[in-house]
Amino acid sequence: MATGFIGIGIMGEGMAGCLLKAGKALVVWNRDASKAQKLAAAHPGLVTVVSSAGEVIDACAVTYSMLSTLEASEAVFPSILASIKQGKSLVDCATLTPERMQTMASAVEIAQGRFLEAPVSGSKAPAAQGALIFLCGGDKSLYEECKPDLAIMGKADFYYGSTGAGSKMKLVVNMVMGNMMCALGEGLALCQASELPADNEGGLLKVLDLGIMSNGLFKLKGPKMLKGDHAPNFPLKHAQKDMRFALQLGDQVSTPLPLAAAANAAYIAQRADHGDEDFSAVFEGQKK
Amino acid sequence: MATGFIGIGIMGEGMAGCLLKAGKALVVWNRDASKAQKLAAAHPGLVTVVSSAGEVIDACAVTYSMLSTLEASEAVFPSILASIKQGKSLVDCATLTPERMQTMASAVEIAQGRFLEAPVSGSKAPAAQGALIFLCGGDKSLYEECKPDLAIMGKADFYYGSTGAGSKMKLVVNMVMGNMMCALGEGLALCQASELPADNEGGLLKVLDLGIMSNGLFKLKGPKMLKGDHAPNFPLKHAQKDMRFALQLGDQVSTPLPLAAAANAAYIAQRADHGDEDFSAVFEGQKK
Amino acid sequence: MATGFIGIGIMGEGMAGCLLKAGKALVVWNRDASKAQKLAAAHPGLVTVVSSAGEVIDACAVTYSMLSTLEASEAVFPSILASIKQGKSLVDCATLTPERMQTMASAVEIAQGRFLEAPVSGSKAPAAQGALIFLCGGDKSLYEECKPDLAIMGKADFYYGSTGAGSKMKLVVNMVMGNMMCALGEGLALCQASELPADNEGGLLKVLDLGIMSNGLFKLKGPKMLKGDHAPNFPLKHAQKDMRFALQLGDQVSTPLPLAAAANAAYIAQRADHGDEDFSAVFEGQKK
Amino acid sequence: MATGFIGIGIMGEGMAGCLLKAGKALVVWNRDASKAQKLAAAHPGLVTVVSSAGEVIDACAVTYSMLSTLEASEAVFPSILASIKQGKSLVDCATLTPERMQTMASAVEIAQGRFLEAPVSGSKAPAAQGALIFLCGGDKSLYEECKPDLAIMGKADFYYGSTGAGSKMKLVVNMVMGNMMCALGEGLALCQASELPADNEGGLLKVLDLGIMSNGLFKLKGPKMLKGDHAPNFPLKHAQKDMRFALQLGDQVSTPLPLAAAANAAYIAQRADHGDEDFSAVFEGQKK
Repeated sequence: MATGFIGIGIMGEGMAGCLLKAGKALVVWNRDASKAQKLAAAHPGLVTVVSSAGEVIDACAVTYSMLSTLEASEAVFPSILASIKQGKSLVDCATLTPERMQTMASAVEIAQGRFLEAPVSGSKAPAAQGALIFLCGGDKSLYEECKPDLAIMGKADFYYGSTGAGSKMKLVVNMVMGNMMCALGEGLALCQASELPADNEGGLLKVLDLGIMSNGLFKLKGPKMLKGDHAPNFPLKHAQKDMRFALQLGDQVSTPLPLAAAANAAYIAQRADHGDEDFSAVFEGQKK
Repeated sequence: MATGFIGIGIMGEGMAGCLLKAGKALVVWNRDASKAQKLAAAHPGLVTVVSSAGEVIDACAVTYSMLSTLEASEAVFPSILASIKQGKSLVDCATLTPERMQTMASAVEIAQGRFLEAPVSGSKAPAAQGALIFLCGGDKSLYEECKPDLAIMGKADFYYGSTGAGSKMKLVVNMVMGNMMCALGEGLALCQASELPADNEGGLLKVLDLGIMSNGLFKLKGPKMLKGDHAPNFPLKHAQKDMRFALQLGDQVSTPLPLAAAANAAYIAQRADHGDEDFSAVFEGQKK
Repeated sequence: MATGFIGIGIMGEGMAGCLLKAGKALVVWNRDASKAQKLAAAHPGLVTVVSSAGEVIDACAVTYSMLSTLEASEAVFPSILASIKQGKSLVDCATLTPERMQTMASAVEIAQGRFLEAPVSGSKAPAAQGALIFLCGGDKSLYEECKPDLAIMGKADFYYGSTGAGSKMKLVVNMVMGNMMCALGEGLALCQASELPADNEGGLLKVLDLGIMSNGLFKLKGPKMLKGDHAPNFPLKHAQKDMRFALQLGDQVSTPLPLAAAANAAYIAQRADHGDEDFSAVFEGQKK
Repeated sequence: MATGFIGIGIMGEGMAGCLLKAGKALVVWNRDASKAQKLAAAHPGLVTVVSSAGEVIDACAVTYSMLSTLEASEAVFPSILASIKQGKSLVDCATLTPERMQTMASAVEIAQGRFLEAPVSGSKAPAAQGALIFLCGGDKSLYEECKPDLAIMGKADFYYGSTGAGSKMKLVVNMVMGNMMCALGEGLALCQASELPADNEGGLLKVLDLGIMSNGLFKLKGPKMLKGDHAPNFPLKHAQKDMRFALQLGDQVSTPLPLAAAANAAYIAQRADHGDEDFSAVFEGQKK
């Protein structure tokens, strides 16, 4: 039986591509049908394009969903739910709130289906390379059954318990990332204002890279930030959304997060002008 | 002619050891003479222990100084200065304010000596392994002459211009580090309060290490933080001092640093109880 | 026809008392019936106690509701809504989110009733004295009809437009108050740590009261804070909730609020131990 | 014997005027001599204008100094000090750091003179009206002798002990004011972004003024802020300087001040463009 895939965006395209390269047949729906057709053309004989999310569920026992925003998720979920019944399973890979995941899980379970949240750590390139990290919560048996698929699309997967736990871990991870980006931006801003080199030999990025703080995020983003190149891997508005959700989680579990709160304010300040650019554009408000 | 070395503490011991292993003869002074004697015993025939900082200067053309605090520096500098004259050079490797470095540079130059600031990025282990990064400012000819020594003690050295520039770069680097540590602490705190694993398989540290944020600081400190092990590599009170100096620099160059300001408050809050422990002890105020 | 009143708590008791003193007959429901009975005993012949919120609506054309939390509001609203029909009007005086007010307004209007949000600025004493400030949004005709009642219970009332606008103004007001309280706490903490007097002749409170910053909040709370007296006028957990909602509003309208974000973190830090005490208990985490 | 007065700026003009109106003869020096001449012309027979700060000291037993910045104070103090000897007393009314006050006190005492710090709370209007508040530290006998003068220039004076204590109290007071201004700015910004009225009937300023938070600062500054009128009573660069000094004091006494730290960042962000305008100009960076 074919596997379902809903949402062929920046992330979904790479993920579905990995499954196809591994020889799996997919039934696919995407709001913009041309993207689904393109995927079908690239993998002849393996992709069936259908005209609604519900039809994907109808045709498959297990369906992966990768919709980028809460709005998209809420718009598409009713069509999915209408087709859920015994024997149908939904694996949602989006980063939403724990509460939203729990709402979907309840609805799917009331309809006799199974639900697994599986938000991913990693962006466009890891998605294309099958190097995502899946942070799962929900139906344990479904998790076990999906592990071979997750292994195709990712380099690691973890199960944290009931629905919501995976999303919480995702928010913690992205909160650390949002803080790190903001910390890098402050460093580069202070460097430039102090008339010190930021890039090149002896520049801050070089010094950081030689020491214990060396990391891929700084290496990838730092040079681009200095050039004002914020082509989006992870849009600022989504990064800010995750900071907001992480702060809400902190509020719920009585954990004050003053650094994240300060970073969140910095992202909000740039959202109107740079929301669709990479979250590295927070630097636009930090530099002089 | 032998090389001078003032200050055989956590950092100085490793640095002097590297020079000795490279066969260089040293004239050494340390406030606690037993440490100097111990160094002499470990390197027979290479170390001359003298009884004041001034005597080091008297005996050597170039002297390295590595005193850990502003107070130590201010206490020892008059003895050094009294012996400075034409032909004498001082390389100060401490992390002080740019202003303090400039004050020392002026005094040395008035006395016809040469001055180079050369604060280091790296802590105890890199010092012992000759893997420090020297961030230099001041007398360019002295910098050029010292490069062979710096290459023995470090893996990289950079020259930023007039005295103060090297210290500024050091403050920027340590500000980024202070923010990163604080960001990690908030992540671990939120993780634990949300009843998610922090260490072990699937724990936050593991997830972070699998992704683009993977870095040596998180790997080194994270597991210890969770155990409450804050044995000092870099004492919290020194990390807080560097945050303070970085914020002062930001104030001077009109760069608001809200993240660093929030982190600084977190370090101050822990300084009374955990100032001599590692700066990872900021976590003690973040966890529930 | 009698006027309805739902919720005879700290605030509602004073508000209902004002209406009764003005000679208005009330139909009252409170979860804890003994409070309603006590009100009836204090105002013979004017109070009819009924056994559900719905019965209040059934008996009256206009009903005021003053329930202190979102949870209480959500628990009671279905009973109210079931009795709403043409000719029935609900005036909700609680501080909830704009979104919650809009949800209630829609439900009431679908049932052919009218809805006015009228959150109040002021706490226990102004409620008892008829000195509240009503911040209204929703049905304009209902607002006009209620003005005489609002004038009995308050010293001012303002109409801001569609439902939600009144709640937003309330959140802005309480955000300023939360920031001011936090600012006072930092001042007192710095004073004490610097071994300066905080109260008494020459103390910070006295100096503040002599100048342009003199205000009732500092005068009322300052001396109590120094004694550790946080008997609740406005519980910290409610103050924190309003900071949270104000920050959410700021997020929605792209207004970064770094001061409020820092204050919110301070309130969250004290919520577990001091949530039911006055919001002045934020000082417990600020003083040494 | 005449009384000395050094510094006839925004504040000093009003203060000296009060002494003159009370019939006291003054010996005056000001960097811009025309201001001193103007004062002399306005008070015939009472003002002697001299050509250096030292001449003021030479001519008087007690001299008040009111120089607005640390730079001005440092530039003028050597001239003062050169004339200090037994029988000479200096009362410094500027807002400087506690450390600077202590340095001046030591120098004056070594020269056998007496020193009192007496920074003031209050700006231009209270200075002109004799309504300042003096926050004193240092020589107690000098304080007692000066009380009649302080009573002419102010409505209250307090003595806090050794030199530095008065300046610390001043910093605490100004920190609270800096936070309150920033809090008002965030409130007005959130109000406007939420399309709520800020001024006029029902506007935030009106609602605040009706309640427990009502205060002179909000009343004076609020309407001007909304008009973008930041004519300086208290220049933003000076307000930011006081926030900086207060944060340094907090650092010294181990008191984290996250609210003040966030506010300080907001002031720094506006300093380059609005440093000479009123500190209410922090609003320029808060509003959309």
